[in-house]
Amino acid sequence: MKYSFRNDYSELCHPEILSALMNASKEQNIGYGLDKHTENAKQLIKEKLHSDNCDIHFVTGGTQANATVISHILRPYEAVLAPSTGHINVHETGAIEATGHKVYTSVGHEGKLYPADILQALKIHQDEHMVKIGLVYISQSTEIGTVYSTEELRALYACCKENNLYLYIDGARLSSGLAASDVQFNMLKDLCDVMYIGGTKIGMLSGEGIVIFNDHLKPYFRYHIKNKTAMLAKGYVLGIQFERAFQDDLYFKMGQHENELAYFLSSQLKQLGVPLLSESPTNQIFPIFSKEIVEKLSTLYDFEIWEEVENKIAIRFVTSWATTKDACIELIEDVKNLLKDN
Amino acid sequence: MKYSFRNDYSELCHPEILSALMNASKEQNIGYGLDKHTENAKQLIKEKLHSDNCDIHFVTGGTQANATVISHILRPYEAVLAPSTGHINVHETGAIEATGHKVYTSVGHEGKLYPADILQALKIHQDEHMVKIGLVYISQSTEIGTVYSTEELRALYACCKENNLYLYIDGARLSSGLAASDVQFNMLKDLCDVMYIGGTKIGMLSGEGIVIFNDHLKPYFRYHIKNKTAMLAKGYVLGIQFERAFQDDLYFKMGQHENELAYFLSSQLKQLGVPLLSESPTNQIFPIFSKEIVEKLSTLYDFEIWEEVENKIAIRFVTSWATTKDACIELIEDVKNLLKDN
Amino acid sequence: MKYSFRNDYSELCHPEILSALMNASKEQNIGYGLDKHTENAKQLIKEKLHSDNCDIHFVTGGTQANATVISHILRPYEAVLAPSTGHINVHETGAIEATGHKVYTSVGHEGKLYPADILQALKIHQDEHMVKIGLVYISQSTEIGTVYSTEELRALYACCKENNLYLYIDGARLSSGLAASDVQFNMLKDLCDVMYIGGTKIGMLSGEGIVIFNDHLKPYFRYHIKNKTAMLAKGYVLGIQFERAFQDDLYFKMGQHENELAYFLSSQLKQLGVPLLSESPTNQIFPIFSKEIVEKLSTLYDFEIWEEVENKIAIRFVTSWATTKDACIELIEDVKNLLKDN
Amino acid sequence: MKYSFRNDYSELCHPEILSALMNASKEQNIGYGLDKHTENAKQLIKEKLHSDNCDIHFVTGGTQANATVISHILRPYEAVLAPSTGHINVHETGAIEATGHKVYTSVGHEGKLYPADILQALKIHQDEHMVKIGLVYISQSTEIGTVYSTEELRALYACCKENNLYLYIDGARLSSGLAASDVQFNMLKDLCDVMYIGGTKIGMLSGEGIVIFNDHLKPYFRYHIKNKTAMLAKGYVLGIQFERAFQDDLYFKMGQHENELAYFLSSQLKQLGVPLLSESPTNQIFPIFSKEIVEKLSTLYDFEIWEEVENKIAIRFVTSWATTKDACIELIEDVKNLLKDN
Repeated sequence: MKYSFRNDYSELCHPEILSALMNASKEQNIGYGLDKHTENAKQLIKEKLHSDNCDIHFVTGGTQANATVISHILRPYEAVLAPSTGHINVHETGAIEATGHKVYTSVGHEGKLYPADILQALKIHQDEHMVKIGLVYISQSTEIGTVYSTEELRALYACCKENNLYLYIDGARLSSGLAASDVQFNMLKDLCDVMYIGGTKIGMLSGEGIVIFNDHLKPYFRYHIKNKTAMLAKGYVLGIQFERAFQDDLYFKMGQHENELAYFLSSQLKQLGVPLLSESPTNQIFPIFSKEIVEKLSTLYDFEIWEEVENKIAIRFVTSWATTKDACIELIEDVKNLLKDN
Repeated sequence: MKYSFRNDYSELCHPEILSALMNASKEQNIGYGLDKHTENAKQLIKEKLHSDNCDIHFVTGGTQANATVISHILRPYEAVLAPSTGHINVHETGAIEATGHKVYTSVGHEGKLYPADILQALKIHQDEHMVKIGLVYISQSTEIGTVYSTEELRALYACCKENNLYLYIDGARLSSGLAASDVQFNMLKDLCDVMYIGGTKIGMLSGEGIVIFNDHLKPYFRYHIKNKTAMLAKGYVLGIQFERAFQDDLYFKMGQHENELAYFLSSQLKQLGVPLLSESPTNQIFPIFSKEIVEKLSTLYDFEIWEEVENKIAIRFVTSWATTKDACIELIEDVKNLLKDN
Repeated sequence: MKYSFRNDYSELCHPEILSALMNASKEQNIGYGLDKHTENAKQLIKEKLHSDNCDIHFVTGGTQANATVISHILRPYEAVLAPSTGHINVHETGAIEATGHKVYTSVGHEGKLYPADILQALKIHQDEHMVKIGLVYISQSTEIGTVYSTEELRALYACCKENNLYLYIDGARLSSGLAASDVQFNMLKDLCDVMYIGGTKIGMLSGEGIVIFNDHLKPYFRYHIKNKTAMLAKGYVLGIQFERAFQDDLYFKMGQHENELAYFLSSQLKQLGVPLLSESPTNQIFPIFSKEIVEKLSTLYDFEIWEEVENKIAIRFVTSWATTKDACIELIEDVKNLLKDN
Repeated sequence: MKYSFRNDYSELCHPEILSALMNASKEQNIGYGLDKHTENAKQLIKEKLHSDNCDIHFVTGGTQANATVISHILRPYEAVLAPSTGHINVHETGAIEATGHKVYTSVGHEGKLYPADILQALKIHQDEHMVKIGLVYISQSTEIGTVYSTEELRALYACCKENNLYLYIDGARLSSGLAASDVQFNMLKDLCDVMYIGGTKIGMLSGEGIVIFNDHLKPYFRYHIKNKTAMLAKGYVLGIQFERAFQDDLYFKMGQHENELAYFLSSQLKQLGVPLLSESPTNQIFPIFSKEIVEKLSTLYDFEIWEEVENKIAIRFVTSWATTKDACIELIEDVKNLLKDN
């Protein structure tokens, strides 16, 4: 196998982040995220957010962040509204429902929700015989690589506030999402109530930074993290990584790098006449090949089969912080040769 | 502050384990614990257990391991029996109850449960108006540093099997527990249904290895791990650490080191006439000092206040894989001087 | 208001059932469903089922029966497959999810699921990153008044068994459903693993009889009923009602009565040229009127607004065990006059 | 068997309440507790409480009321403090834990909690590694027949309010409890945040009236009732019963009747030299007999074995609204004869 384009968590950790861990290996730090590195990481993130008025907590994984945040916000009879493609609906093995809450879905459009989707869901849910919609869940970038524009997020959040709904942004791929949209990191404080800054999929060993902007959601969140089994004894392992990621704009540069290579791949593929399932500006692209090409390609590269499209197959290539231009060039060469042979 | 004896998770990671991570930093590995390092780690553990017939899964933390295992084993109306000092009863912020199960407690003796405790609990719970006891939870070593002997574990497990109860061993400090008892690692397959091998408290960044011996408990455990938000995308980060820990007996040596230094401390303190709250053979010891001494000591060292004992105070010193003999000698010298001055 | 056709639970209780309660009012009975009436009710039901090999338990309401059965059957990471119109999906305020389980839905056809729907759901759910489908939920009759034929149920159950899924029938309106289909009560033991016999919607004060056919699902169900808060101290109140309902075929006659009057209404409405939303053979019918007619009708009768249909409105008339032919005749007369006036 | 003194839910229903149900048997009522009888019942209760400012909801059983109220009040990481003898701790098969919450217990004194118990519990629970105590649960009368005085309740509630805890009174036997204490029904609005008025154990078919005094706990409670499967379609069945119970002081007279007969029994038994386990002023008394007497008595009467007391046995006699003086006289005669024979 030459290279894996299967996902953005195949490589351990960005070298700078690994160095930061090594540098701290002789220290003694207090536990549970009360250490100086975690404190500093929070400070650095707040600076980038242009906000002093938010609470930040680090946990280990995305499903964990989602279940912890959502079950903190909702009352027992409340549901979260998500796009039907949403990670919490499809790929978390019922982790949200395991905390007692329905995931109510709307088809949305290209993996995204719009105010009309929210209003329609609210129209249907009007009395105590149905769940009360309490929270809207979206992701930036989405599961299918699309991004919300600032305007779209603004409209969505306004709609949420008018209807007493909280808005939560799953930022598993926030770095790539920011690099591909006109949304600036420092705008996010005005565009949602709570979000998480993804680390696992952008060069950390693991780690997601939950940021709570809305004052109502802040109290007792540490209790809830522990209750949801998400509190690490060695919290500083996460703190050290986020501390480094938010120095020198490393966090943001990694997403830019991913997107640049994904753009290189998609534009080259288009030149070769390969159709794409969608116009994704982020680090996931979805080219469509014949079954024969996919089979041959799979002997050279690792990637995910996405779905069948009229007798052909859409596959997914994901670029990561560690993907090299050389690997992308080689992939394109191989595709070119395979297409020629067919 | 000269040194922290507060706990055994103040230092990042054993240097050999950090090296193993660095060595893998250029690799691409597949996610979710299906990689070659995780596979190798499991193989090494099985060899040390003298057992091919067990399933092993790595998760991130102890509370997470406990909640995942317990909620996998129990039916909704079933409870887990634990010693009242048990971690799941006292220090997990209701994480077990959050999965729907009562933690029923017995006082036990010195942090340990005995067959008589089990039989008493069963005697009380005999019809459908009370929870059904389904599982017995113990820890090796216990929360207060004591250990079960082989004979004690054998009797406990026999009692469980006779009464259709599962036995689960919380091994957050298994390395220290094994080094202090006559229980050999390879005996454990015959002494319980499921256990976890603690990593966080013995030199890993984080990580606990759940070992399922009982065939009935094996199916669909990976589904349950994901449902309980405990599945890491970068599962190989845990695999690499356990792989290294189970080479060269590193896992076992770290516990021996801890115990040796704890024994040095406790025997020196006894020589100085300092009483100990209990006879702990493991890496936690509980000396009793006057309030004045505790106050002065706390300006030099970090440690935990345990409880008041007749106008005096029992404190806890914990040694870790990283604690040095020099630090212990210095501590004893400082205690000696403080006692002299008083 | 002349009469309410809003639902089939507007009238207290069938007079014969009320008499049975009065007859027992001087007795002392033991609690929790262990009394002689409950025992006799179970025996009568078993005789009608031609089955000695089933366990029967009485609870108070339909949502309670559904949540108790489903959470007893499923493991934490498992979901129930239901038609998207299913009561558990739409009208239980997240009660199933509150027990920790996802309700995964398929659109189905006319409120019913078919083997193809099951196979499609299974095809999508193949690994531990998604819920495991563990159970199929259907209702007889359905939420929209349709019924499964024997052949349809047989095919569905065969599909479930081939795929290791349990099949559960919600019988909130079982009496009406049976009277409208070729499914005999005594066939049900071979057509599902568990079902409930609805009482609340067919002439009891309240009460649903859960029948467990599958041996695997029988153990400890009483513990689970108590755990799910569904065990009544005065269980005999339910036992007495079911005892009477299953004498003289009263349970079955009530459903026949409902269906006959509903058929009278629907056939008369058709003669008047009123279109129906669906061909429902049971006690719910869905005529479509202009907004003006609906408004006028609503000053005379109580009924539910179902949905808009191309500028008109489908409403729901429900007949109950207590509905009289006279009331139906009067309704038809009033409709006739309203249509004439327009 | 001459008579059962096993409990206070052996007889169906007070004749006046049964009459009220019969009187309504020709009516059509709207569902889900929105009917005129339920409305009237609430009004009558409010008048007796001298309070317009409370919300009242009727559910079917005591465990259901407890689980619904407690899970409505608590956040996921919060626990309820209860006396160790409390019904929610001992006799609900984990129903509270099934909603995700720990029941933390204090031994208390004679089944009751005191401010010192609360303060001690709070002292132990001070950080996010332990559950947060959010609610105090007590019962009037208690599981062992004792009652709180007005002064005791006042002190307890003051302590709760000072410490930001809610106070919830389980009134399964409130009628008997009120009749035995100096607490007046109309004082309760100032003595707790929420309570339930027990019906099942005092002459209703079933039914408990949850009364919410604290404004913070009122919103969306109907959603929560449905989510916890406790909403009855025929809510008016409960409304009619409470409506009648709160006319002519019937609710209160039934408890007085119970207590009078229990007092007759306990005073007669004392005269016969029979020791009592405790001084219970309510409808449960606990005489202590030799094993031989208990055995012989059990051939004549039904009662519960409570516990062994130094080679003898404490049993429980419960009087109900339906118990007659004659039955009590006969019991005393039989005891007298049995004692004579021995």
